[in-house]
Amino acid sequence: MLTMTGSEIPSDTRAEAIDMRDLAAYPTDRRIVGARCEEGGVIVDWDDGRQSRFHAVWLRDNCACSACRHPQAMERQFLLIDAPERITIQEAQTTLGGHLLVRFGAERPGDAPHVSRFDAGWLRHHCYSDWARAERAWHPRSWNALGNSPGTALIPTVEYKAVMETDAGLAEWLTAMRDWGVVLLRNAPAEPGEGLRIAGRVGPVRPTNFGTSYDVVSMPNPNASAYTPIGLEPHTDLANWRWPPDFQLLFCVANEAEGGGSILVDGFSAAEELRRCDPEAFDLLSTQPIDFRFQDETCDIRHRAPAIELDHAGAFKSIRFNNWLRAALDLPEAKVEPTYRALRTLWGYLRDPRFQLRPRLAAGEMLAFDNARVLHGREPFDPNTGRRHLQGCYLDRDLVLSRLRLLERRRMSEGEPKSGPR
Amino acid sequence: MLTMTGSEIPSDTRAEAIDMRDLAAYPTDRRIVGARCEEGGVIVDWDDGRQSRFHAVWLRDNCACSACRHPQAMERQFLLIDAPERITIQEAQTTLGGHLLVRFGAERPGDAPHVSRFDAGWLRHHCYSDWARAERAWHPRSWNALGNSPGTALIPTVEYKAVMETDAGLAEWLTAMRDWGVVLLRNAPAEPGEGLRIAGRVGPVRPTNFGTSYDVVSMPNPNASAYTPIGLEPHTDLANWRWPPDFQLLFCVANEAEGGGSILVDGFSAAEELRRCDPEAFDLLSTQPIDFRFQDETCDIRHRAPAIELDHAGAFKSIRFNNWLRAALDLPEAKVEPTYRALRTLWGYLRDPRFQLRPRLAAGEMLAFDNARVLHGREPFDPNTGRRHLQGCYLDRDLVLSRLRLLERRRMSEGEPKSGPR
Repeated sequence: MLTMTGSEIPSDTRAEAIDMRDLAAYPTDRRIVGARCEEGGVIVDWDDGRQSRFHAVWLRDNCACSACRHPQAMERQFLLIDAPERITIQEAQTTLGGHLLVRFGAERPGDAPHVSRFDAGWLRHHCYSDWARAERAWHPRSWNALGNSPGTALIPTVEYKAVMETDAGLAEWLTAMRDWGVVLLRNAPAEPGEGLRIAGRVGPVRPTNFGTSYDVVSMPNPNASAYTPIGLEPHTDLANWRWPPDFQLLFCVANEAEGGGSILVDGFSAAEELRRCDPEAFDLLSTQPIDFRFQDETCDIRHRAPAIELDHAGAFKSIRFNNWLRAALDLPEAKVEPTYRALRTLWGYLRDPRFQLRPRLAAGEMLAFDNARVLHGREPFDPNTGRRHLQGCYLDRDLVLSRLRLLERRRMSEGEPKSGPR
Repeated sequence: MLTMTGSEIPSDTRAEAIDMRDLAAYPTDRRIVGARCEEGGVIVDWDDGRQSRFHAVWLRDNCACSACRHPQAMERQFLLIDAPERITIQEAQTTLGGHLLVRFGAERPGDAPHVSRFDAGWLRHHCYSDWARAERAWHPRSWNALGNSPGTALIPTVEYKAVMETDAGLAEWLTAMRDWGVVLLRNAPAEPGEGLRIAGRVGPVRPTNFGTSYDVVSMPNPNASAYTPIGLEPHTDLANWRWPPDFQLLFCVANEAEGGGSILVDGFSAAEELRRCDPEAFDLLSTQPIDFRFQDETCDIRHRAPAIELDHAGAFKSIRFNNWLRAALDLPEAKVEPTYRALRTLWGYLRDPRFQLRPRLAAGEMLAFDNARVLHGREPFDPNTGRRHLQGCYLDRDLVLSRLRLLERRRMSEGEPKSGPR
C-alpha cells in the first residue's frame, strides 16, 4: 500500500492503492472519469453517468493520510478547529488508477498545500448526493398476520447447524433479526445453555438485573410475572431500563404443559396503525414520557420514556410497552386521561389478531426478536400438565451489527461475490 | 400487614397498615383530612392545606390489592383494557389511620364494587398536581470554571474509606455523580484493580468492546487514540455506540510523566451557551444525526445520533462529541457545511477555558463522571519522563440510581432521618 502525506505526488500512479485506514472493503465496479473544483468543493463524474459532489470541508475532514489519521488506531488526528474557517481546493484530478486526488489551498502563506487521495470505492460508498443516500436507505420490513393462518408460516427460519458452523448461516440469521425483527432457529439440541452457546456466535450477551441468562419457568416465589404460569400480554422486556436490551433470544428446552403458546406482534406495524387511525393518541404516546419500574430485594430500576420513540424524521426508534412494569403515571393532570385512553387504544391493536403471530415453540427451537420493536407474550399454561422451560438472554444491537460487518469484511477479503448485509 | 381485596371493609381501621406492594418507604408527616368524589376522580385534602386530585382511572390502575398486584412479584396484574372504558367511583373516604379508601362503581350490573386502599405517604409521594410535580423536579447542577482557579477546587470530593465502608459515604459519592456529573475520590490504595473494586460497591460494570476495564497507557500498537501519548480534545467515550456507557470511573495508578493533566467540561453548560449564542447551530446539532464509528480487528461499531440529545421538553438528555470517532458525515448536501460550522462552534466552547476544569490526578485518586454529559480530555504527555497509568471502567446509570434507592430503602428501614437521595 502506498500512503501519501503532505504535497508529495508520485509520478507513476498506475499501481497506486490508496490506504483508506479502514478495515472494511468498499468494492466498486465504477470508475471516476472526471473531477473538477466547483462551488466550494469537487464534482466527481462516474463512468455510469452518476455525479457526486463533495464539499471541501468534508474532503479535508476525511483525509486518510498518516498525518490526518493515526496509522495504527486509524482514528482521526486532524483537528478541524485548528484549520482555517474557509477551506479551499486548488486542484482536483482523477488518478490513473481511477481514484481522486485533491490539492487543498495552503493554510498559511508559504505552507505547502495538503494533498489527499480518496479511493474510488470508498468515495462511491460515502457519496451523500440524494441518489446515493436513497440507494443506501434502510427500512425495517414490517409484518402482521393478515393473509396467514396463525403459526410460524411468516417467521423467517434458519437451521441451527448452519448458524453454528457457517458464516453464511450466521449472516442469514442476523440479517433476519435486523430486518424482520424476528427469526426462528430450529433443530438445536434441546439442552440448557444452548441459547447462550448460540449467542456466543455474536459476542458477549447483555447482562441485566436478571443475570446473563434467565430461566422462564413457574417458580414458587417469583420476583417477576414471567416466572409465574399466568398469561402475559404482548410486551417489551425491561421497559424500566433507560436502554432495554435490544435483541432477545428465547430458547425452548421443553414445552410440554397445556397452554403456553407464544405471541408476537410487530410493534412498528401496530404503532403505524395508531398513527393512521388516531393521530392524537400517537402524538401523545410518542412525546409524553411515562413511568416504568421494577423492584425486588436487589434493585429498584426506574425510567421515564415515551411508549413510542421516533427519530426527528418521524421514523420509529423503539416501542416500550409493559403493563406490569408500568409505574404510577406522573403526568400533568390534563394529560392523565388522554394518556390512559391512548395506551388503551394501542393495547387494543397489540391484542388484535390482525397483528399477532402465535407460534408454539418446540424443544430445540429458539426465537430471536428485536425487543425495541417486536412485542412478545404468552398464553397462560398449566404447570401441572407438563414441563415448560425456556431460557432467555439478550444481545446488544451494536454487537449484532458489528458481527454482520465483520462477516462481510471476511467475505470480501475472501473474494466472494458481494450481496447481503449492508 | 393487612391486605384488602374485593369489597371487604374492616370495621376497625385504626391499626390498619396498607400493603402498597412496594419495597420503598414513603414516609410522610402529612395526613389526609378529607376526601370527596369530584370531576371523575377524588379530591384529597392534606393537613398542611395542600390539595391533590387523582383521576378514577389512575386510582383503579394503581390499586395494590392482592388481586390487582401479584403478591410476590408486586407487578400489576390488573388489565385496564378489560375494564369498562369509563371508570366511576361510588365513594371516597378517609380511614381512621389517615389513608384513602375508594369504592369504585360496579364494572357489570350485580358485580361487587372493587375497593382500593391507598397509603397516605404513597399518595403524597405520587401526587401529580402541579405543586407536587414542581417539588419533585430534578435538574442537573451545572458548572463551569468561572471564578475559580484551574484545578479541582470545584469538584465534589469524597474519601475512599467512607465510600468503601459506609452507606452514607457511598450515597454521597453517587449523589454527586448524579447531580454534578463529576466527583473526585481520593486516598485509595494506588493499586491496579482498585477502580473495579470501588465500582463493585454499585454493581456489575458495563462491558464494552474494550473489555470490562481498560488500561490507559501508551502502547506500541494502539487500537485507539487513548492508548497513545497524544493530547485528547474534550470528548465523550464510545460515541459510536447506540448507548454509550453512562458513568466513567478513571482510576489513577501512576501519573509521573510530564504532561497528562486532565480536562473536564460540563457539556450541558457548553451546549446551553450554544443555545443562547447560536440557536441555529444548536437546532441543527440537536436534531440532525451525525455518524460515529470505531473499528479494529474484532469489531466495527457504528451509530448515527445527534451531537446533542434533548427530551421533548427541551431538556438535555446527552452529548456525543468525539473527533476521532466521528465518521464521514452522511448528510443531505445542504446540511454539510452548516453542520461542520455548528460542530466547530460547539468545539470552540469545549476548548474555552471558561468551561474547562484542569485537575491533575495523583496516584490513588479516581474521577467518576457522567459520560452522557461531562466531556473529558487530557494534555499530551511524554512517556519517556515517567510512568502514566490510568484504569477505567463504566457503570450504568440505571444501576447507580438503583443503588441509591436501595441505600435509601435501607436507611428508612433503620429509621434514620430523611434527606439526601431522592
